[in-house]
Amino acid sequence: MSSLALVIGNKATSSWSLRPWIAMVHAGIPFREIQIRLRRSDTKAQIANWTASGKIPVLLDGGERIWESYAILEHLADRFPDRGLWPADPAARAHARSISCEMHGGFAALRRDLAMDVLHDLRGQRWSDEAQADIDRISAIWREARGRFGASGPFLFGRFSNADAMYAPVVTRFATYGVSLGVVERSYVDSVLAHPAMQRWIDEAKAEPPMGT
Amino acid sequence: MSSLALVIGNKATSSWSLRPWIAMVHAGIPFREIQIRLRRSDTKAQIANWTASGKIPVLLDGGERIWESYAILEHLADRFPDRGLWPADPAARAHARSISCEMHGGFAALRRDLAMDVLHDLRGQRWSDEAQADIDRISAIWREARGRFGASGPFLFGRFSNADAMYAPVVTRFATYGVSLGVVERSYVDSVLAHPAMQRWIDEAKAEPPMGT
Repeated sequence: MSSLALVIGNKATSSWSLRPWIAMVHAGIPFREIQIRLRRSDTKAQIANWTASGKIPVLLDGGERIWESYAILEHLADRFPDRGLWPADPAARAHARSISCEMHGGFAALRRDLAMDVLHDLRGQRWSDEAQADIDRISAIWREARGRFGASGPFLFGRFSNADAMYAPVVTRFATYGVSLGVVERSYVDSVLAHPAMQRWIDEAKAEPPMGT
Repeated sequence: MSSLALVIGNKATSSWSLRPWIAMVHAGIPFREIQIRLRRSDTKAQIANWTASGKIPVLLDGGERIWESYAILEHLADRFPDRGLWPADPAARAHARSISCEMHGGFAALRRDLAMDVLHDLRGQRWSDEAQADIDRISAIWREARGRFGASGPFLFGRFSNADAMYAPVVTRFATYGVSLGVVERSYVDSVLAHPAMQRWIDEAKAEPPMGT
């Protein structure tokens, strides 16, 4: 098997990078990490070395470069079918794809008003009604998945899956911004935050040089 | 096998609906069509009957409802693995997922400034520099896919695939807005427009009642 490498940004704030990273660490897929420092004068040029899309993360898999966080997650599930990155049950898997794609293409107000920053306590910050509507929709998505498919474990589909990877950066936002949540959502946030891969990401974010340096 | 139904909007303008529709028609997957008329007073309520996401298309597959165009395409490839909806070669398939996800989550300026309308000649309309940058990026994506993976046929990966379904609404925009294109992109646009499923979509759009009615 050819070796894998993942090009990511700063762990403190690069929400898209967290998604494939946490899936790969969770699944025990070995990879080399290539970090690009964000908000520096050479950031754009550094990213252009890896992808013409201008966006990270990028997975290097042999000679191929795969970009877009959700495409990387589908690729990993396809390439490592024994790792359970999607639920085995077809109905659960179909539902997991729908909610993952809703995250991939949507929730612009949440992403704008509650930017990910795993290092700072952001309680007291305010956000728009549109961002609150995103929070309410995400809460409903989590309750439905937990209620219908979550019996075998603490994650959206029981066991940790690509859907949890897609929502992991939202979990950190809900925690750092002190978003009011119901019992089911709060319990889910706690489960993701307690995942060893999430803990490792946050620890490594704390050890990074400050942004822009 | 349980029966499938696809909830879509007006064919003239519902670019997201075209994506799974053209894939299913191309692949010969039988389905019932449920059309919701857009821009009517009851449109929102009609969509809410099918999905809490507020968005169409929605695929009804037995008891499951799958939403988000890209999730539906992944689901169809998973459920009908013999239909070739993704390229068989792993490198081509990985690349197809990247460019499909880049379409799913991006090109906001193109979507804003060159809204899909398959019924009208929109040559002479203007668009922003940001939309032109999207056009340039999409042109580069098409040239790279055609150059690297397109030898076996006229589509991005040779045979028609989910990636072509994702870009089909862009093809119609490039044609109706008269976007200047290079030789490779022009040839690709012509190939998609000549696909019998694309022709059927446009013919059925012409036969629809006017928008809002």
